This record gives sequence, structure tokens and C-alpha cells, in this order.
Amino acid sequence: MKLIRFGEVGKEKPGILIGEKRFDVSSIVTDYNEAFFEENGLEKLKKALESNPVLPEVDASIRLGSPITRPSKIICIGLNYVDHCLETNAPIPTEPIIFFKSTTSLCGPNDNLIIPKNSEKTDWEVELAFVIGKKASYVEESEALDYVAGYALLNDYSERAFQLERGGQWAKGKGSDTFAPLGPFLATKDEVKDVDNLSMWLTVNGKKYQNSNTLNLVFKIPFLVHYLSQFMTLLPGDVISTGTPPGVGLGIKPEPIYLKAGDVVALGIEGLGSSSQVAVAYTK
Amino acid sequence: MKLIRFGEVGKEKPGILIGEKRFDVSSIVTDYNEAFFEENGLEKLKKALESNPVLPEVDASIRLGSPITRPSKIICIGLNYVDHCLETNAPIPTEPIIFFKSTTSLCGPNDNLIIPKNSEKTDWEVELAFVIGKKASYVEESEALDYVAGYALLNDYSERAFQLERGGQWAKGKGSDTFAPLGPFLATKDEVKDVDNLSMWLTVNGKKYQNSNTLNLVFKIPFLVHYLSQFMTLLPGDVISTGTPPGVGLGIKPEPIYLKAGDVVALGIEGLGSSSQVAVAYTK
Repeated sequence: MKLIRFGEVGKEKPGILIGEKRFDVSSIVTDYNEAFFEENGLEKLKKALESNPVLPEVDASIRLGSPITRPSKIICIGLNYVDHCLETNAPIPTEPIIFFKSTTSLCGPNDNLIIPKNSEKTDWEVELAFVIGKKASYVEESEALDYVAGYALLNDYSERAFQLERGGQWAKGKGSDTFAPLGPFLATKDEVKDVDNLSMWLTVNGKKYQNSNTLNLVFKIPFLVHYLSQFMTLLPGDVISTGTPPGVGLGIKPEPIYLKAGDVVALGIEGLGSSSQVAVAYTK
Repeated sequence: MKLIRFGEVGKEKPGILIGEKRFDVSSIVTDYNEAFFEENGLEKLKKALESNPVLPEVDASIRLGSPITRPSKIICIGLNYVDHCLETNAPIPTEPIIFFKSTTSLCGPNDNLIIPKNSEKTDWEVELAFVIGKKASYVEESEALDYVAGYALLNDYSERAFQLERGGQWAKGKGSDTFAPLGPFLATKDEVKDVDNLSMWLTVNGKKYQNSNTLNLVFKIPFLVHYLSQFMTLLPGDVISTGTPPGVGLGIKPEPIYLKAGDVVALGIEGLGSSSQVAVAYTK
């Protein structure tokens, strides 16, 4: 299944994507949140769909929201592609570097990117994210995929001055509103043949800056679930983003390039669809 | 008002503390969560209590939970007491250092502290925390207190090896389960005469290790609300912890002291009550 949420900001309803068509499943499911995954919602939804219920079609013009809502946390992995370490002059980590993105940064896949006030270094990062399906604490790597509900495309927007020049901890540069467009959809595991071999790309104003493949991940999903679960309990619906490949604005030679109002960022991962955000200046 | 939540883990009900007595207000309030604060729950509860409704008394033997539930985030301020910077050999910050605690670390004020598997450096930190009362984005310092619902005692437990020796970002050492006992209660602003002059203390096995006053905070609450709201939207119910004074285990000379199973940690802040946690080893 490919799960979507559609409608106005804060009023999204759950839906599914079948081929190019979107259907409203709000008669079956309340929302794609912690309770949904915890209460075996994926299995129940799949079963309900097997009886071919009549579902209202959702017009393609309607806004998509984040395919999941209100995760307890968004955990990101830093420097998880070898070439990205090289471009940012960072050593290749011997174990995952982890940080949190504020959950208030989550937004729809095609929502505008709001460049924060006083930002001069807003940057992009195409990433493969996965969503936790059941409570995970001290999980073995061999069983880790049982705890994964599915996969989605994420743009891990980052304000590099806030992240790197304001005290050492990255939290300030990762959590601004609209800094985590997720989707277009959450693909359940069965939809993705080989998650370790998916091409991924990102363009700004049509020019390709990132172009890689999940083959190049240093730490892969089963290890990440195992590893993270040593430090904290992962809850159903939590989002974990696996890091970005080379080609971010910060790494561009001879001078970094950052986003300005009017820029159009587009990105995609094989089998997980594509998204696009227009950068706008913050106004109140 | 002094808000409490009481009952078994995951099944807590909202209550209030009047003098030493606890009362069940679940007939008036669903829970102390984001929706409660957002929908002006504090004012509504206050009004409802003015008519002196008959409220069931809650026995003092019943467990207290965290006085608020499921915040979107817990933000902590690092190195916010001058003397604590000195003891940890860290420079005094020129602006706040911020990091997230996993919201899954939140627990009741007197719950056991579970020392994580493979932990050798679990440490304590008594802190003044505050809870956001309404959505805050780009807030002026002069108006910042309007966005604060109240104050509570927090122990910001930290695993120093996970925090400091595993890649540079602090997330790994701050978010283990039971690492954020909050309460005993959330005091609304009117309950606290001068939040900038509250004595605070922490003991381990009866020996006093931390003994300070919120007078010594480098960055105070109005500035923190203003500052944080430049980087991300704060939601009603979010918890912000203002940092710890000197006397943590890491700073003890000649050798740091860390917690082991059986240790009893007790802490308190003037006007915000006290809490106590017994350290236990993780077992599955």
C-alpha cells in the first residue's frame, strides 16, 4: 500500500494511492498516527481493502500532507554517505551520528519551504526515511525489519549557520517549520523490492545537485533500528531519516550555494515518488 | 493551580493538588496535553473549580505520572549556569546551547531510573523546566511570559559516555527511557512568586551534590522563549528545561561519580516540590 494524507494543513484525512489515483479511506481509518501503527492498522486497512469497498476518489489538485502525523520523534542520521563526508570535510563515522529534527518541521511534500527569518544558509538534503511500525527497544539487527512499517522520501532542510555556527549542537538548524517535507506517500515494505538499491536525486531550478543510490549508505536500516533502540525506545509512527548523499549546497566548490526565495527544489527516490518545494521568504 | 497526573503508566488521569491533598479532575479535563493548553484549558479548569465541584480525592499512595503528556518536544538548554560550565571545562556560552531530549524519556517524578544497558556513566541534573501554554513563533522577549503555562521540576538524566564519546551530538545520551522524570506537579505561573529566585538541590544517597538557585541562570526564561522561537515553533505542552547548576557526577574531583543500581536520587526546587528516583539496572 501507498499511504497518503490529503487536505488543508491540520485537517488532513488518510488516503491511499492506487496507480495514479488517490482514494479517501477516512471511513476505515482515523489517521496515520502512533495509534494506527500500534494497533496493527496496516494489517486492518489491507484486510478492509480486500473486500473492495467503494472509496471516494480524491482530486489530484488537492494538497498532500505528510503521510503520517505527529510522530513522537524524527531522528536523523548524520554523515551516512561516504562521499557526503568528504564534501563536508567530515571524517567518516565509525558509528552513526544521530540528531533530532523538531516534529514541528514536518509538512506536506509539495508545501512551500519557508526560509526562516535571518537565514542566509538554508540548504537541501534528499533522504530515504523510514517509519517505525511497532515499539522498538533493544532490538536485534536480525529482527529489525519487523519493526519497520515502510519507507518515504524526505527533504532534510538544514540552516547551516544555525546548525554549525551557533554552539555546536545541530538542533537549531534542523527544526524550522517546513524543514521536513515527507512523502508524497509512505510505501509499505512490500512495495519496495530492494530498499538498498534505490536511485535518488535532487534538483534546484532544474539543475541536478544530488544523484546517488541507497547502495552507498554506510549504515543500513536494520543496523540503524538496532543501534537507535539501544539509546531510546522507538514508537510506532516515529520517522527515521537515513542521511543524505553528496551534492548539498554547503559542499559546492568553490563557494557554497544556498536557497533564496523563488528557488524550486525537486527531489525523488526510485519507487517512493517525487516532491517539489518552492522557497519563500518568511513573512508574518 | 498545581496540576498532577496520577495512576498507572500510560493510564494516568488529570488531577490537581490543593495543599497536600490530591483531587481527580478527570470529570472536567480529558488530559493535560497539547489540546488542553491550546484550547485555553487552564482558564476553563480554573473557572470550573471556582464553583467548588465535588471532586474525588486521590489517595497519596497512588503513583504520580508526568504532570503533562505527549509534548511535541522537550528542549533543553546546555551549560546555562556559569559554575556548571567551569566544572565541566566548557566555555560559558555567548548564546544558549540547545538540544532535544526524546519525548519517550518522560516519566513520573518518583518512577525508577532505569540505567540503560551498557551504561557506565549515568548522571543526574536538577533543572527548572517550564511548559509552553500557547503556540510560539518569533516571540518578542517582552511578551514571552504570555507563552508560558507554568513551571516544574525536572531531572535531566544523562549518560555521559553516550552523550560525549559517541560522535559529538548529545542526542544519544539524553533520551533513554525514564531519563526525564517531571514533577511532582506543574505549577501555573501565579503559584510562583519569583521564578528567578528559587533555591534548588539534589542529593544522592542523602549526600548533597547540587545546591544552587535560579538566580544563577545565564539565560532566563523570557529570553529563552524568544530565542528558541527564532528556530522553531513551540507548541502548547512543549517542555523546555533551563539547564543544570554545578554538582553533576561528571564534574566531581578527583574522579567523576556515576549512578549504580540501588542509588537513591532526590531533588527539589523551592515552590515546585521534590521528587526521588531509585536507580535500577535494565532487565528484560
